[in-house]
Amino acid sequence: MKEPQDYHLIMEQSVAAFESYININATTKALFLESIANEIELLGDLLIETASVETNLPAARLIGERGRTTMQLRMFANMLREGSWVDAVIDNDIRKMLIPIGPIIVFGASNFPFAYSTAGGDTASALAAGCSVVVKAHPAHLQTSILVANAIAKAISNNHLPKHIFQHVEDYSFEAGKALVQDPLTAGVGFTGSASGGNALCKYASDRKYPIPVFAEMGSVNPVVLLPDTLINNGVSIAQQYASSITLGMGQFCTNPGILLAIESPALQVFLTTLVEAIDAVTPAKMLHQAIHDAYQSKHQQALSQKGVEQLNNSLQHTNTETPIPIIAKVSGIDFLLNELLLEEVFGPYSLVVCCKDEVELKAVHQSLKGQLTTTIMGTDDDLSVFSSFINESTNIAGRIVFNGVPTGVEVCNAMVHGGPSPASSDSRFTAVGVNAVKRWVRPICYQNAPQYVLPDALKNENPLKIWRLKNNVFGKE
Amino acid sequence: MKEPQDYHLIMEQSVAAFESYININATTKALFLESIANEIELLGDLLIETASVETNLPAARLIGERGRTTMQLRMFANMLREGSWVDAVIDNDIRKMLIPIGPIIVFGASNFPFAYSTAGGDTASALAAGCSVVVKAHPAHLQTSILVANAIAKAISNNHLPKHIFQHVEDYSFEAGKALVQDPLTAGVGFTGSASGGNALCKYASDRKYPIPVFAEMGSVNPVVLLPDTLINNGVSIAQQYASSITLGMGQFCTNPGILLAIESPALQVFLTTLVEAIDAVTPAKMLHQAIHDAYQSKHQQALSQKGVEQLNNSLQHTNTETPIPIIAKVSGIDFLLNELLLEEVFGPYSLVVCCKDEVELKAVHQSLKGQLTTTIMGTDDDLSVFSSFINESTNIAGRIVFNGVPTGVEVCNAMVHGGPSPASSDSRFTAVGVNAVKRWVRPICYQNAPQYVLPDALKNENPLKIWRLKNNVFGKE
Repeated sequence: MKEPQDYHLIMEQSVAAFESYININATTKALFLESIANEIELLGDLLIETASVETNLPAARLIGERGRTTMQLRMFANMLREGSWVDAVIDNDIRKMLIPIGPIIVFGASNFPFAYSTAGGDTASALAAGCSVVVKAHPAHLQTSILVANAIAKAISNNHLPKHIFQHVEDYSFEAGKALVQDPLTAGVGFTGSASGGNALCKYASDRKYPIPVFAEMGSVNPVVLLPDTLINNGVSIAQQYASSITLGMGQFCTNPGILLAIESPALQVFLTTLVEAIDAVTPAKMLHQAIHDAYQSKHQQALSQKGVEQLNNSLQHTNTETPIPIIAKVSGIDFLLNELLLEEVFGPYSLVVCCKDEVELKAVHQSLKGQLTTTIMGTDDDLSVFSSFINESTNIAGRIVFNGVPTGVEVCNAMVHGGPSPASSDSRFTAVGVNAVKRWVRPICYQNAPQYVLPDALKNENPLKIWRLKNNVFGKE
Repeated sequence: MKEPQDYHLIMEQSVAAFESYININATTKALFLESIANEIELLGDLLIETASVETNLPAARLIGERGRTTMQLRMFANMLREGSWVDAVIDNDIRKMLIPIGPIIVFGASNFPFAYSTAGGDTASALAAGCSVVVKAHPAHLQTSILVANAIAKAISNNHLPKHIFQHVEDYSFEAGKALVQDPLTAGVGFTGSASGGNALCKYASDRKYPIPVFAEMGSVNPVVLLPDTLINNGVSIAQQYASSITLGMGQFCTNPGILLAIESPALQVFLTTLVEAIDAVTPAKMLHQAIHDAYQSKHQQALSQKGVEQLNNSLQHTNTETPIPIIAKVSGIDFLLNELLLEEVFGPYSLVVCCKDEVELKAVHQSLKGQLTTTIMGTDDDLSVFSSFINESTNIAGRIVFNGVPTGVEVCNAMVHGGPSPASSDSRFTAVGVNAVKRWVRPICYQNAPQYVLPDALKNENPLKIWRLKNNVFGKE
């Protein structure tokens, strides 16, 4: 634990670096992001082995996640080279574009030691925006974080950039996080993790004399609606698909399907039998760390002890107390509706099937759901026609609607939305994944009657950057 | 004062209307906005006379503001017809676009009875986004607000739209505002007014179980930097220009220039003499209402009583106690730096000239400024070259930088930014003026693997709306 003045010194360094970084051109910034990706790759097996020891995640998964991380960095480099992301608008002598907001604090995720941690999506998008970044290392994978932080430091040095555009804080205390978020020089916060953690940061930020934006991507139960006709026609294959999705990475994904909704029917019974068999066939692996394991134990036991909740699979063969027991439980629609606790996320390989007595109850259960990262609708064309109102309702509560698929697996692309109405994230107007994640860390600035030589290149008459601009109401590159 | 359940009923009606309005096509929404503009115009002189009685604003000004209001409504109608504002992005089977967030509460401004009130920018942008709106009428111009609300109701009826997409709450109590912001069905808040009012609403919103976004456009002192060379060359004309800007509408604009910064010099003395003469020549008019008049009296007296602050103009000839006395005061750079109270807005025809002893002190004073709606730099080419660091610093604190002009007068255009870092507004990433004001009330939704018939027109393969889309990384209308 440092003293408060130590955090303020960190932020003073961050502001000074920001003020110099803001004048660095886009090409150099792009080279810098690519250089981070290269330096991460140069860490080779050491990085994978270190992360595997710290998180219990298998090497194959970590290699995939490293690829996602370096791909994100290169994606933002491409965005900078192309240049149109600054949303330049010209109306004669009034001109605007996006500029970075200032130093950003990033709190990494326990479940993505690379892609949502030290050099993950928040850091990459903030550095691309032109912000300086202070990462508070996640205690669950400190050595991994230090390795990646060193790679970033090397990339800074390779590109002769100001040293403090990236800083790494190794301090586990709540006080450290609070001091960084509440420092007067901090301009924004990125967080991926639990609802309690995210809500605490939002509170710290709104309690400041001058509040700042926080983008917190928090929990979600990612409801899946299993419609009747598809259960009759595809129940068995859907059950197998979902057994994999529920236990993927031992359920430690924010898009893990935690609640399945269906109407009681013989087809649902076949689905459940297949799901339970497939779940019981999964060999569990250790969770990310002991605190997550312990939280899973107490959260699923609490859920199973609620009125009307019944565990469907037989977990007796799981004798290894070091690994979590994947669990499928069921509850009636009415018991679900009467108990708000069942809406809460159980982080891990757990899913609750809400068996509704009819269409009316299914609708009521669906309407009781809160903000979600994703909702999924499994249905044939007939189903989607009969239950068309569910589509509208799903758009109202979620950031992403999946049709006939699984919510796990978040593709990094322009069209992705990873975020959603509260409590899924703290601001549904932004996404944490994809190129648009950069929009969290920028704001528009308007120049009125500025001489050409004062204007940034993006706003100069001759469009030296050759970017897309909205000029006197016409979109083009002129 | 109603009971809490009355507000909840209002919000239940708002949600029901929203759920139906969301399915209305863009052309009908555009006709509706134009219909509001037409109905406002049909109110004719009655509206102008009613507003003039309630606000003391002269007819000419109100006629201009009415024109701005109807123009804004028609601007959003054009945006809807053109259609590209939904930011459609397609990456094969993953597609996203913007959708409305839900019922919005709008708190109108006392100083813009039309353009930032009942059918003003917040209401127009929220209705254009597809949100339902609840306006809490401003107590200072209730009859005006009722007339405009009736015009909106007529437009709803003309276009056969759900009655409750717009509701008008006539209740002055703080409790009413709090109940509306904290109702679980409310999705967002728009506010224009004082820092204390805006901060209170932000607090109500962040204290909710599920927080919602608030866009509060609050006070600003809109600093103006008067650089040495332009004072020598253009001091007299700048003084005349600024006397008009400071007293325009009796200083009751959020972009009123409240602080002028300069370095002591003979040219500054000439500027001050001219400014004081021009200010003393202004015939004051009554302020918007008594509470604003009283607040101006106490705020300017408090400011004048601070150490080192000296009133420059002779206000003895102002014997009419019903009108405010325009005031120019001055203070040294060092006294300004030592007194945070002098950073606060004095809403009315008041401006403080900070006379710095040298360039170093001017820089220190400039750096002490907080978030602003605007900053203005008055300077010749030579000035801008010598003081180039001021431009960067101004971009860091403001939403708009004006060069060699006045901050008053906010053009409604695509490139305008009306907002700024805290405390100027609650979220500098958005603007309250211009087409992009709509972005405050929308969020992205992503459809994954959706059948074509489920997709909104904006995301269908054949692009039936012929809008600009980013499709597999290529921007176009295909």
